[in-house]
Amino acid sequence: LGGFYRSLNKNLEMEIVMREKLKLVKNAAGRLVPTMVNGVKTIPYKGVGKYSPKGLKAAPPIRSCIDYPTSGNKIVGSLQEALKKCGLKNGMTISNHHHFRNGDLVMNQVFDCAAAMGIKNLRWFPSASFPCHKSMIDHMDSGIIHHIEGSLNGPLGNYVSEGKMKGLAVLRSHGGRWQSIQDGEVHIDIAIIAAPTSDPFGNATGDRGPSACGLLGFGLADSLYADHVIVVTDNLVDFPCVPWQIQGNNVDHVVVLDKVGEPNKIVSGTTQITKSPDRLYIAEFTAKFVKAAGIMKEGFSFQAGAGGTALAFAIYLREMMKEAGVKARFIRAGSTKYLVEMLEEGLTDYILDGQTFDLEGVRSIRENAGHTNTSPFTSYNWHGKGNFASMLDAVVLGATEVDVNFNANVVTHSDGKMLHGIGGWQNCLFSKCTILPIPSFRNRIPIIVDEVTTLVGPGEL
Amino acid sequence: LGGFYRSLNKNLEMEIVMREKLKLVKNAAGRLVPTMVNGVKTIPYKGVGKYSPKGLKAAPPIRSCIDYPTSGNKIVGSLQEALKKCGLKNGMTISNHHHFRNGDLVMNQVFDCAAAMGIKNLRWFPSASFPCHKSMIDHMDSGIIHHIEGSLNGPLGNYVSEGKMKGLAVLRSHGGRWQSIQDGEVHIDIAIIAAPTSDPFGNATGDRGPSACGLLGFGLADSLYADHVIVVTDNLVDFPCVPWQIQGNNVDHVVVLDKVGEPNKIVSGTTQITKSPDRLYIAEFTAKFVKAAGIMKEGFSFQAGAGGTALAFAIYLREMMKEAGVKARFIRAGSTKYLVEMLEEGLTDYILDGQTFDLEGVRSIRENAGHTNTSPFTSYNWHGKGNFASMLDAVVLGATEVDVNFNANVVTHSDGKMLHGIGGWQNCLFSKCTILPIPSFRNRIPIIVDEVTTLVGPGEL
Repeated sequence: LGGFYRSLNKNLEMEIVMREKLKLVKNAAGRLVPTMVNGVKTIPYKGVGKYSPKGLKAAPPIRSCIDYPTSGNKIVGSLQEALKKCGLKNGMTISNHHHFRNGDLVMNQVFDCAAAMGIKNLRWFPSASFPCHKSMIDHMDSGIIHHIEGSLNGPLGNYVSEGKMKGLAVLRSHGGRWQSIQDGEVHIDIAIIAAPTSDPFGNATGDRGPSACGLLGFGLADSLYADHVIVVTDNLVDFPCVPWQIQGNNVDHVVVLDKVGEPNKIVSGTTQITKSPDRLYIAEFTAKFVKAAGIMKEGFSFQAGAGGTALAFAIYLREMMKEAGVKARFIRAGSTKYLVEMLEEGLTDYILDGQTFDLEGVRSIRENAGHTNTSPFTSYNWHGKGNFASMLDAVVLGATEVDVNFNANVVTHSDGKMLHGIGGWQNCLFSKCTILPIPSFRNRIPIIVDEVTTLVGPGEL
Repeated sequence: LGGFYRSLNKNLEMEIVMREKLKLVKNAAGRLVPTMVNGVKTIPYKGVGKYSPKGLKAAPPIRSCIDYPTSGNKIVGSLQEALKKCGLKNGMTISNHHHFRNGDLVMNQVFDCAAAMGIKNLRWFPSASFPCHKSMIDHMDSGIIHHIEGSLNGPLGNYVSEGKMKGLAVLRSHGGRWQSIQDGEVHIDIAIIAAPTSDPFGNATGDRGPSACGLLGFGLADSLYADHVIVVTDNLVDFPCVPWQIQGNNVDHVVVLDKVGEPNKIVSGTTQITKSPDRLYIAEFTAKFVKAAGIMKEGFSFQAGAGGTALAFAIYLREMMKEAGVKARFIRAGSTKYLVEMLEEGLTDYILDGQTFDLEGVRSIRENAGHTNTSPFTSYNWHGKGNFASMLDAVVLGATEVDVNFNANVVTHSDGKMLHGIGGWQNCLFSKCTILPIPSFRNRIPIIVDEVTTLVGPGEL
């Protein structure tokens, strides 16, 4: 929304503006933003609901069965062979989902292959990157990756914050990423879908296999709109892989590796509730507010992430729901053990899940019919015929900063370093009641500020 | 493939050619076909695998949540109101799925609304029409419907066969219909999705509700590619309707009627096996062939429809599988009680289902995780990255005629009357072994002929 141009120190900011020959304009939030980003014309923020997209959705090429094996067996021998068959060349865009989080073993190999093939100037378009992708820094230094568009966590965020990347970083919300693909703003040449389980046709699911991650919704747009789609798995099953969260009919090649993910870094074995007395206190207040405001009533809905405070909120709320004999119709998640317990105790009819955060979430989405697989299309895409986000009665989110005008920041720290992804945060602001339960201070740094470093969500939402 | 131009008597044929000012060319099957059909340039059949589609898929308009209710409630008061909101006007294309078969109560009302609104020259684009749609003849006579593109059964087939329709009939296979929408050959202005169960957002399923029809796959392309989508239901449930076979995110309006279908005409209470000794004998031969040819082995797959002989084939095969201790990996269906029994007895891991033919099929797809919802996209679309049809080890189909060059006919009788739909028949020909178990004669009319009346499937397949 507001973006990048308060997130760096002023000197570095001006250096990048001059290096990239950027022209800046003031957007509706009063922030200076570039008119072009990485060679693409931008649409500066106009205010909530003020921009109406026009035109037609992006359209992938029509394919023909004549070019695919009639046996349905699309397995090729290696990642490199698959990339060659997809016609990988300089300047292309390679995408992936981040359901493997910090346990991903695939994407470093993909860019190592690109390096071995002598490819340059790629755009990496993950739904998010993690510390495990630190070696991409070498690929950026050597020009194999030109720049990254996607949420940046840890070392990559640090690298970019220091102005070392050639192109500009573009962070998008989950919904914003779907929109950018659907609307044709980002054209994906090759999508990599790491899959905990797949059949040779490319039907794939995230809910089982040694690298089980729950679901694959963040890769759905990639599979639908990319020119070429490669499924990479370490758990090949006979056709048909049921359920299929990714449809083999959208897949070009299947690559089987020994290991695609580190299970303990993909999902936690257990979910940690915050132990901070302050945060617990804030979480309890939040739950009490939701009850006192009359939001917690029969058939209501809420969303709470896996962050310490949000998790504690859900636990307080659960007790209040039990006491009051109130049942939710649905919970939007990031699923955890605690939300699964609520489903299995009958405190909600459904979990509409975007990603599973722990092993209980994975088990539940595999076993419970009421634990439902969603995607940014269903939940967050603003350029659609409605989405789920606006139907939520209450949403509890985090923030790195909130200012006195209720503008909030979620990607940068107060020192300007961009260390977190946006996730579904911006999309969730459209709920009926969005709550940011934050402390006034963290590590002696004020969290309530006069003006947020990076404006990620406008106060009016 | 071959088409229309042997299906009528010569005089009527020439009359239509002259009336429509058609230019005819000889296609690769040696049949004269028009170069233009209903104002659209045709691609005459070039031979199996000889035509490669080019270009990009059709792209529906980008929408914005700003134009849809944040509550997710898209219910409007009546069909007519929904059609008005969709901007219904002269010359538009209105589509629907045929999962309600001869029990559909929606589409006659839709065109009655169009008549009341004074709309003319509509193209009706159903996945199939049935005798219950007989009143569309009045709408064609009065010019409300210009012509129908879709499989024609019974009275409408008769009407068209007599040359009374203004435009030309176009019959497509299930896969061909998907292709025509996906490739942009047919642009749907308004799609009507009759839904046994829906929520106010438009998430819809066919597997439950008083008009349960099993699944809604024939309406999937319509929901994805149409400019406007209306869900019509008689069983409204609170959001979310889970499972959703049609995604509310593709739906513009929801209309609630007292009754959308006649349950006993949507699915049969029971499935009838043929009682004809000849057909039973042929069915048994077919099953014996499948066994003797080594096709019936552990992990194999087959498809058999709900026709009398195909059904009997499945029953013979089941006994042989039990005797031999052989289990199938999957059965493609048209599901019936008998296939459901095979699933529940463990004789197959999966039923990959395109439509349910009886109440047991409906129950099973609702209850059995191995009974899987498919669509023409997964199974039949030839303009995709492979499809399921080519993976089948054996497929048993019907035919109205087969000629000495193995060309077959499935839409016209030997008298030239077009009385049946193509269904998935053409698509299924791509299986590893396609069997047409037909008698030599039916009602004293030869079924094995020198040359089929209408060439629907070429002998080489």
